[in-house]
Amino acid sequence: MTRSYTVAILGATGAVGTRMLTQLEASQVPVKAIKLLASERSVGQVRQFKGQSVTIELATPEAFTGVDIVLSSAGGAVSARLLPEAVKRGAVAIDNTSYWRMHDHVPLVVPEVNADTLHHHQGIIANPNCSTIQMVVALAPIQQKYGLKQVIVSTYQAASGAGQSALQEMRHQAQQYLNGEAQTSTLLPTTGGEHHYPLAFNLLPQIDRFEDDGYTFEEHKMMQETKKILLGDKAAQAIKVTATAVRVPIEIGHGESVYFEVADTQQANVANIQHLMQQAPGVILADDPAAQLYPQPLTAAGHRETFVGRIRSDLENDGHYHMWIVADNLLKGAAWNAVQIAEELVARDLVQVPDSAADIFA
Amino acid sequence: MTRSYTVAILGATGAVGTRMLTQLEASQVPVKAIKLLASERSVGQVRQFKGQSVTIELATPEAFTGVDIVLSSAGGAVSARLLPEAVKRGAVAIDNTSYWRMHDHVPLVVPEVNADTLHHHQGIIANPNCSTIQMVVALAPIQQKYGLKQVIVSTYQAASGAGQSALQEMRHQAQQYLNGEAQTSTLLPTTGGEHHYPLAFNLLPQIDRFEDDGYTFEEHKMMQETKKILLGDKAAQAIKVTATAVRVPIEIGHGESVYFEVADTQQANVANIQHLMQQAPGVILADDPAAQLYPQPLTAAGHRETFVGRIRSDLENDGHYHMWIVADNLLKGAAWNAVQIAEELVARDLVQVPDSAADIFA
Repeated sequence: MTRSYTVAILGATGAVGTRMLTQLEASQVPVKAIKLLASERSVGQVRQFKGQSVTIELATPEAFTGVDIVLSSAGGAVSARLLPEAVKRGAVAIDNTSYWRMHDHVPLVVPEVNADTLHHHQGIIANPNCSTIQMVVALAPIQQKYGLKQVIVSTYQAASGAGQSALQEMRHQAQQYLNGEAQTSTLLPTTGGEHHYPLAFNLLPQIDRFEDDGYTFEEHKMMQETKKILLGDKAAQAIKVTATAVRVPIEIGHGESVYFEVADTQQANVANIQHLMQQAPGVILADDPAAQLYPQPLTAAGHRETFVGRIRSDLENDGHYHMWIVADNLLKGAAWNAVQIAEELVARDLVQVPDSAADIFA
Repeated sequence: MTRSYTVAILGATGAVGTRMLTQLEASQVPVKAIKLLASERSVGQVRQFKGQSVTIELATPEAFTGVDIVLSSAGGAVSARLLPEAVKRGAVAIDNTSYWRMHDHVPLVVPEVNADTLHHHQGIIANPNCSTIQMVVALAPIQQKYGLKQVIVSTYQAASGAGQSALQEMRHQAQQYLNGEAQTSTLLPTTGGEHHYPLAFNLLPQIDRFEDDGYTFEEHKMMQETKKILLGDKAAQAIKVTATAVRVPIEIGHGESVYFEVADTQQANVANIQHLMQQAPGVILADDPAAQLYPQPLTAAGHRETFVGRIRSDLENDGHYHMWIVADNLLKGAAWNAVQIAEELVARDLVQVPDSAADIFA
């Protein structure tokens, strides 16, 4: 008899949470029961799961009793407070916030790349940053085959990465702009910030708060998480990673202009890298300049795969390449990657909290 | 008695041409008479210049008789055909198309950077590509002070760079998208191409046609023009330049994520580079993360200056830096740079075609 699971979605009404529900519905995870958890504001609302009505409950520590798997996307503070409570009650939590990602005992998982690290989980598993996920899906096969020395990325990130309300505000601003009215801005670039600027018909080179070194936290996330995922414990094989993160006025689908240097300059070339991408799990190669084929957000939205194109070599720097990556930031960048981790946990029979976890997150 | 000039604007009704007229109106160029030239379609239309009505005439070789200065932005094919005719008739032409830019006898001029090359002109002077102009305005002082070894740029280019009709189509697409209707695409990514894709709420990693090496012509322009402007004849001081050009759904103001390596790693640092930008002609330093101050297209539009911010060092690569540059692509990127060249020609008394020009462009 196959084991089946009680799954809770924490933050069930958000841009990611709603997609966690639909991705779970279409997944290989055998769901015995579903719990939808959210803040007071959403309690009592009803959602559909596999034809059944599910009423949203308040997210409290006790709500995790009897839960096997938690899919969490309710903000860092909520994850900090509630996930240890879930683990204490025997649930394995897959967290989409940044709070636990760099914790030594938390695997940071992109299933195509490092699913094996799931075997060391202590109850909490982190979903990487959306921009990081799509980049490492494409970079990992290159790193494995040719070695990577450095990565320089500039992002083009969609409004939905900042949540459902930021997305709605951007749409509203776009209509105001087209009407010739002043745009209203209350959320972006970052809800915690003092200043808010319009995103519609604009570019905002700030995602998340600034750090003392002049980088944003979003840029730091990409720099740190990429190394944790690609290198694991092999710290000796250093990869230099640096990033510029920019919010652009689109709804769904992050773009990334990625410049990278391979170690094996003899074997690597454009055709070989294209071939690697064609074979790479979770990647769709969309790279045919003659046919004007390249990744675009509007055509990537709604897909689980990462689209890679515009692969070409630096004409003056041997072993250096460009590529252009687009993925649905709410699916592969968030909800689908989390559900995909749940599928891996199920397939590897890892849906249990090990005894060693007792005090790790306390 | 100060000399005054008859100025012709070729392509007077386009997104750039209309701005050439207003920039000229507000310039130091003493205008004796103005001629507005365009294709058949626009002949007979009337425009205002310094309170006077000017009727648009057909752009023919004979129309340049008696003209001293031509400001040209009517497309490469028109510049190829008509500018030699203008020069033959004694006019000095400042061309905004790409057609003459890399010609050995054509100075490629950004006045803040290389106005001295105007002294060698043979009748045709080229305005660089919009993305190139704003980048070299910021890079030139760094090159002069510290030396530049390499530049890696990813652009975020506004719809208006593709002309007035592309801009209108993008606005129309945006409204269709907000209404939940299918978007109509007939122009972008490039009018000559077989396929057309919506730009509104999308990203198009193709600007201009593809070359055989996988780069677009726009990317080639940035790579070649940057070197011609920054190095001039000093080919020994090679600078490596590589680019990724992406069209983004905004109206005016190109963004650029620029990563660069300086030669003098001892003297250069973030504070010194910020100081350089503060002193640099044509640059406004907008770089205060704590105050969330950085360049944005919506705030740069309508200004002649280039805005520079987010200057920071690569945390792992000594001598490598990031910066974020925004300028109004129709003003500094086109119309203002052209009129500024005209001002320089006037100030240096260079508004005449040298005898040596006779057969150069024939």
